[in-house]
Parts: sequence; structure tokens; C-alpha cells
Amino acid sequence: MGTVPLLQDEEVSAEALAVFDDIRQVRGTDFINNFWRSLAHDPALLHATWERLKVVMAPGALDPLVKEMIYVAVSTANGCSYCVHSHTAAARAKGMTPEMHGELLAVIGMAAQTNALVTGLQTPVDEVFRAEES
Amino acid sequence: MGTVPLLQDEEVSAEALAVFDDIRQVRGTDFINNFWRSLAHDPALLHATWERLKVVMAPGALDPLVKEMIYVAVSTANGCSYCVHSHTAAARAKGMTPEMHGELLAVIGMAAQTNALVTGLQTPVDEVFRAEES
Amino acid sequence: MGTVPLLQDEEVSAEALAVFDDIRQVRGTDFINNFWRSLAHDPALLHATWERLKVVMAPGALDPLVKEMIYVAVSTANGCSYCVHSHTAAARAKGMTPEMHGELLAVIGMAAQTNALVTGLQTPVDEVFRAEES
Amino acid sequence: MGTVPLLQDEEVSAEALAVFDDIRQVRGTDFINNFWRSLAHDPALLHATWERLKVVMAPGALDPLVKEMIYVAVSTANGCSYCVHSHTAAARAKGMTPEMHGELLAVIGMAAQTNALVTGLQTPVDEVFRAEES
Amino acid sequence: MGTVPLLQDEEVSAEALAVFDDIRQVRGTDFINNFWRSLAHDPALLHATWERLKVVMAPGALDPLVKEMIYVAVSTANGCSYCVHSHTAAARAKGMTPEMHGELLAVIGMAAQTNALVTGLQTPVDEVFRAEES
Amino acid sequence: MGTVPLLQDEEVSAEALAVFDDIRQVRGTDFINNFWRSLAHDPALLHATWERLKVVMAPGALDPLVKEMIYVAVSTANGCSYCVHSHTAAARAKGMTPEMHGELLAVIGMAAQTNALVTGLQTPVDEVFRAEES
Repeated sequence: MGTVPLLQDEEVSAEALAVFDDIRQVRGTDFINNFWRSLAHDPALLHATWERLKVVMAPGALDPLVKEMIYVAVSTANGCSYCVHSHTAAARAKGMTPEMHGELLAVIGMAAQTNALVTGLQTPVDEVFRAEES
Repeated sequence: MGTVPLLQDEEVSAEALAVFDDIRQVRGTDFINNFWRSLAHDPALLHATWERLKVVMAPGALDPLVKEMIYVAVSTANGCSYCVHSHTAAARAKGMTPEMHGELLAVIGMAAQTNALVTGLQTPVDEVFRAEES
Repeated sequence: MGTVPLLQDEEVSAEALAVFDDIRQVRGTDFINNFWRSLAHDPALLHATWERLKVVMAPGALDPLVKEMIYVAVSTANGCSYCVHSHTAAARAKGMTPEMHGELLAVIGMAAQTNALVTGLQTPVDEVFRAEES
Repeated sequence: MGTVPLLQDEEVSAEALAVFDDIRQVRGTDFINNFWRSLAHDPALLHATWERLKVVMAPGALDPLVKEMIYVAVSTANGCSYCVHSHTAAARAKGMTPEMHGELLAVIGMAAQTNALVTGLQTPVDEVFRAEES
Repeated sequence: MGTVPLLQDEEVSAEALAVFDDIRQVRGTDFINNFWRSLAHDPALLHATWERLKVVMAPGALDPLVKEMIYVAVSTANGCSYCVHSHTAAARAKGMTPEMHGELLAVIGMAAQTNALVTGLQTPVDEVFRAEES
Repeated sequence: MGTVPLLQDEEVSAEALAVFDDIRQVRGTDFINNFWRSLAHDPALLHATWERLKVVMAPGALDPLVKEMIYVAVSTANGCSYCVHSHTAAARAKGMTPEMHGELLAVIGMAAQTNALVTGLQTPVDEVFRAEES
């Protein structure tokens, strides 16, 4: 169990239930995953998080699958087990193949390695990489 | 300056110079960025890192631009300034538009936020997200 | 299980038992949580950690509840599950209400998000934020 | 310089300028710090971030100074230099004394240390710390 | 379970099985730990990771036990539970005594603490620590 | 500059100056590096940190050079630039050769990579790695 209990539909406030309803409608499923059930203890935080997530993860200049893989990459670097599980599942639901998953992991691992090497070497940033002052 | 000096072409070993030559040929430019110049103190490590990077970042199930954006995401989560600079520049060179950059940052920020919320709540992983035992 | 077994009272050294006794007296409970039982394998490290913790978490310019919430914030950012659990429980014992917990999580999440945005943008520090040289 | 140039007032979109104006009014100063000037490249992200920050950092169950110190703690654990600078300055502006700053750092350092010890020991969470299932 | 099932010998590709065979021969045991079984979903990544690990962890200027303890230190700082477990076990197999384990943890904890203090203070690097330009 | 000014000898309290004197005597040099000068704003924190560092880094079951390399490894994983610089310099002063530095970096990079792969795969810990309950 977490630091707060998971709330069932009949235990949450009206504001939280409205968010659950919107999640169900947007995702086309009755299933509400544990993140939202634990966040429902603070309906305002639940609402703000869900509203923002909808905007950020919507199709735009980047397609939703690419966004999910970026989400997996950040969650992996941050060491968030729950998030790695939930966004890997979401990426699969959006079309990530085993080959894509393997390459995603390979890039994440490569980046982690060179991040560490650069930090150990304290390599100074090349001037050419810096944005010019406007 | 870093923890080691940046090595110029005339200061590196033959093994390291061969890596520099391959970087120049693969990238079609004479420019060698500082990461490789600092890594050249250990030619074997330089060689292994470059050889692996070529494989990992090559076109595959994911296209190179997507891979660069994943690299930026990991580097940002790991707080590696040099890496954020160099891979943001690389992503731009591969076609990342300002709109894509904005969405990349928005997803990174969203993921960092929900990673923190999940960790603070210690939300247990939904059974449905776990891979079934083979 | 951890990387070392949890030690029961009858298994620890005299030095470690003296620390357990002091923990019991200071906290007014017979309960010794697992952190101290795993740390008891190294009595000197156990002793130094407990002695320092007592000083750092004592009332001072900041009150103990504020200190516990700061502890939760750091533990969350560092992704330490045990620490998030134990210090969230400690904060509750010191008076953290559900409303305060919700706001604590909201600030942690907001900070994680803007930390990530700043790192992705590599925003330079404003001169006005730097301490002047004495 | 960062990965994007800092935008001056005359370079930003109308939507971004409206956010700058609101920042100025809420804070009672004409000064816009670099974070917002770099974020102004994506007016929608700028707007969403500022609107959320206003809500999260407003007085509530926790007072604004406590929230700023929590922000400093998270930023320190995440290694965000800019954020440590800007939120330490903000905490001072809200009344953080040198004694409070010293205690804040002592708690952050203590937490970082025990986070690392717990992770190295892989101490299992005490049952008593887990929230009971509702 | 993880984000992928653990693969048994009879489920993996010929390329992956060859890696398993080499692991068994190099380590002198029939046991294949879970990391390799989950990585076997991507035989090329499995192969590259194992080949590189053999080189990096081999005796050299640093002895294998020191390398394992450094591996434990990095894994602890990165919050990787699996890695802390597996490399602590490996260090013990290579001769790490309880006293050495205690000192390893003490150094890790001390470093984490002063890392946090330095980051909170944003202490500028002493010129004498920087490598001179070649 | 940092979040606090660096304090010169004539600006610190008597308690802080006594710590500076002890640092000078123990290290056999008149040089006080910036970390201690920024920490001197809180003499009690300065004193506690230095006293503990002396104990932790003293020769014991691990030799001082190994301890310094572990310190570099943790500092690198935590992304602390100052600490990477200062402890790399300290390791060199204690005998770290370029070959040892290269191997240290290679292990740090390898660990960072496999930490990331394990986290992305969410590999479950092998039962054989867990300490048996006492």
C-alpha cells in the first residue's frame, strides 16, 4: 500500500468523481488506474493534473506514441517504477512494438551512460551548442 | 575546464585519432565536440562509446529524430547540462521544430511532475500493467 | 528482504542496543523501525546517524513538522520509498493534516516540473539571484 | 546561454506578454526573471506553468515561506542550479533568516544521507507505515 | 513482474542463448540472473551489454572488488534496487567483508550529504580543482 | 557566486575558524577550499560535517584512495559538479593514475547504463540476492 489508501468510486468527492468520469470517457474504458485513485484524496490536485495531462499528451507536433516513449524515458531516468509500468503499457496500447521498445531502452541506456561520462569528465559546453543571445 | 584537459588532434593517440576520423566521416563535418576530446584520454573508452553510439542512434524501428528527443529527455531528467545542450542541437539538426521542442519540454515537465506525485503517494502498481510470467 | 538481515534486539551489539534504548526513550515508544535494525550491522554508523538526526530534527528556527515535510520532499525527489513512507508517517504524527499533505505534494510536483523545464531550457541564472561576494 | 535565447518584452507574443504583465502585477515588480523569458518561446506552456504556480504557491494550509523552502529542498535534490538560486532568493524575500537557511540545508543533507543509507541497505518498509486499504 | 516477462532458456533466440552460455562459462555457474533473462527480449542489446560488461569489470588498474563497490555506489545513488541487490551480492562473492560494506555505505551516505549541501549552497568550483587547458 | 558568499578567515566566527584550523592541520596545507568557506555561515553544520568527514574518510577496511573513488562515483551519479571536481582532485592527490581514472569512469558509465536498463525493464530481484531473515 501507498502513503494514502486507494479510493473507490463510492468514497471520492463529487469533484473527484467528475474527473474519474472524464478519464473514463476520454479513454473509452471503465478502468481507473491506481494513480488517479490515490490522487483523489486531493480533488483539486487530481483535477489540475488530469486537465493538464490531457493537453500535454494530445496529438500535436509530436504524435501520441512518441510522447509516451518520452514519458517512459523520463520515468526511467527518475526511477519511478509505477510510471515506467503505466507508461510502457500505454505506449504498447498506442502501437509500440517489441523492436521499438528495445530501441527505446537502448537509447535510454546509452544516454544514461554518456550523461555519467560527461558528468565525471565535467566536459565544458561547446560554444556552438549555445543559443545565441537574441 | 573539466576534470581533464580537452585534447587537440595532435595530442591524442593513434587509436583516438582513428575514432575522431570516423566521427568526422560519419557526421560529414570536421568538427569534433568537446565530449570526444575529453574522452580521448582513454582511447579504449572513447572507441567503445563511439562504436556503440553509432549503432544505438542509427535509423531502426525508431527514427533518428525520435531517438535524439528521447536522449534529450533522459539527459534533462539526469540533469546533464552538456548533454542537454549537445542533443538539443543534434535534434534541431535532424529537424526538430520550435513546436516540437515546446511539446518535448511539456512532456518532460509533465512526466517529472507525475513521477514526483506517484513517488510521494507511493501508489502501488496496477496488476494489469505487469507483464505476465512467461 | 534487504541487502542485510534486520537485527532483533538480542542479536545486536551492546553499542547498538544502547542506541536502540535511546531511540525508545526519545520517541517514547518501544517500537524500533526497520531502518535502525538494518543499520545496526554497523554500530558506529548507527550511532553517528542517530546522534546527528536528533540534532538536525530538533526544534530550532524551523519547527519539527516543517522539518519532516522537507524530509518528505527530499526523499520523494530522491525516490526513496522507505523514506517517503517513514517520514510521511512521522509528519502525520507531528500534525500534518490531509490538506497539508495535499499541498506538500502539489509543491513537490510543481518543483519537479519547473526543475525539468529549467534544465531542458538551460536557463542562465539571473545575476540578481547570486550572493554578492563578501 | 541556454538552449533557447532569452526573449525580451518586444520579442514575445501577445499571449506571452499578457503572462509577463500578470507576473509583474502579482509580484509587484517590473522584473521578469530568466525562467519566464526562456519559457516564452512556447506561450501556451508559459501560460499553463504560471497559472499553476500561482495556485500551488498561494497561502493555504501551508504558508508561502514553508512552500518556498520545500521548493528549495526539491530543487536541491534534483540538482537544478537555477531553481536553487531563484527559490533561495524567493525564500529570503519571504522571511527566511540565515538560521532557517542553515537548518533547511542541514535537513536536506541529513535526508540525502539517510536516503542513500536506506537505498544501500534496501530496508523493507515497516508494515505500520503503510496506509491501510480503505 | 517487470515490463517484460523473464525468458527461460527454451524461450530465447539462438543469439541470446549463446550469450547465456558465455555468462555461464565466464562465471562458472549455471545460474542466469533475472537481468539477463529480461534483457533477452532484445538479443542485440543483451549481447552488447554483456560483451561490454565483461571488458569493464575485468581486472585492470582497479581490482574487481573495487569495481563492484563502485558499481554499488552508483546504483545506490541512482536508486536502482535490483542493481544494489545484485552488485552487493557480487561484491560479497568477491570478498567484501561486513566491515568493508559498512565503510562503503558510510562513504556513500557522506557523499550524498555533502553533494546536497554543495548543491544547496551552489558553491563555486575552486580554480585549483580545474584541469589546466592543454 | 553561490547562494551565500564565501567567507574569508577574518569574517568567520571563532567556532568556524577552529574548524578551518583543524582542516589545515589534518591536511597539512593552508588552503581551505570553497565548500568549507560557504558552509562557514552555519558554524555548527560546518563543525558536524567536518568531524564526520574525518571519521568516514580515514583509513579502515577500505583504503583512502578507494574511498575517494567511491566519493567521485556517488558525486557523478548525483550530478554534483563541485564534488566531482574536488574529489577527483583528492583522488589524484592520493595516487589515482590516469588508467585508474579511466576505469573508474568506465565503471560509472556502465553502472549508469545497466541501472537504466533494469529500471526500464523493472526486472524483479532474484531471490538468491536477498539477505535471509535472521
